[in-house]
Amino acid sequence: MVRRVIEFWFDFSSPYAYFASETIEQFAAETKLTVVWRPFLLGVVFPKTNMAPLMQMPIRGDYARRDCERIARLLGIAFQLPDSHPYAAVQASRAYYWLEANRPELALDFAHAVFRTHFAEGRDPSQTSVIAEIADRIGIPSDELLSAIQSNAVKDALRQRIDEAIAKNVFGSPFFIVDGEAFWGWDRMPMMRQWIEKGGW
Amino acid sequence: MVRRVIEFWFDFSSPYAYFASETIEQFAAETKLTVVWRPFLLGVVFPKTNMAPLMQMPIRGDYARRDCERIARLLGIAFQLPDSHPYAAVQASRAYYWLEANRPELALDFAHAVFRTHFAEGRDPSQTSVIAEIADRIGIPSDELLSAIQSNAVKDALRQRIDEAIAKNVFGSPFFIVDGEAFWGWDRMPMMRQWIEKGGW
Repeated sequence: MVRRVIEFWFDFSSPYAYFASETIEQFAAETKLTVVWRPFLLGVVFPKTNMAPLMQMPIRGDYARRDCERIARLLGIAFQLPDSHPYAAVQASRAYYWLEANRPELALDFAHAVFRTHFAEGRDPSQTSVIAEIADRIGIPSDELLSAIQSNAVKDALRQRIDEAIAKNVFGSPFFIVDGEAFWGWDRMPMMRQWIEKGGW
Repeated sequence: MVRRVIEFWFDFSSPYAYFASETIEQFAAETKLTVVWRPFLLGVVFPKTNMAPLMQMPIRGDYARRDCERIARLLGIAFQLPDSHPYAAVQASRAYYWLEANRPELALDFAHAVFRTHFAEGRDPSQTSVIAEIADRIGIPSDELLSAIQSNAVKDALRQRIDEAIAKNVFGSPFFIVDGEAFWGWDRMPMMRQWIEKGGW
């Protein structure tokens, strides 16, 4: 049986991706899809669309901060934008792909932990020590994970996913692809659900 | 009794504002608010946020085109992006404010006609002849309207609204303000409804 999947592209440093990460698995269960988590680096894509990190944009950044705070209250989840925001999610993304390939049963826990460490606890996952803490927390020896993400194979794995994102015109975070149809943004999830349920329109 | 209002800021040339324009009056009726229609010129605001017309942005423009087409099908309304898109809505916006002040009973018909003339019929409302046709269609002598929008008073009226938009940090279209809370985008209307019904959260 062919698995019907929803590709969930995101940058770990994206607040709207954090919101999506908290509900996407339930969304997938309800729509009978399997989520494929696809971290990538938005910073690599931005030059292609003349965009910049949202929170650093004049006027729009202030609005986005307030928008995120009210979404978090609505969802009932912790949220903050620590001084380290936005951070470069290179190590976290490499670690995700290594886990997906080698310890898939821990990959989801890891992804949630990365998001929550930053947006709920205010830590900076660009720090190696923070990745190490997350590894210990989810039950993988931190030295094993840290040494794995230094390998060229893991670096290539992330690079290939970023190339894939670019090839698929993924330009934002979160960004979903289901049955070849693209949906950009946490706020497109209700429409994506309609699309899935109706089989398009 | 104080009227409780929802400010509906938009550029006539914005497709997502067109979608909002088709449902905002019903939205307001259901939430017991009065809509204040506030056309402005997004092009004046863009330099302040380093943004550009959506459909002209690389990659994002292609996505937005497809996104708009599926939204229109979902809403069951006609939609196209004619060659004249995006157009400068200076005359249409001036005409709106003149009607609001002098023939308020026709202002809403005019606004709908401007949106539909472009997005449903593929015409270019930056053309004086198109504004004249719209005037005739809604029942105002076109020479009266065309001469009114040449007056300095009407030009100032639009300029003041644009200044107001800038002062209120209105940076996109559609952009709603209700009870001092800002909501950007057609896709924030469901959340805005929750906000109104709950009195915030």
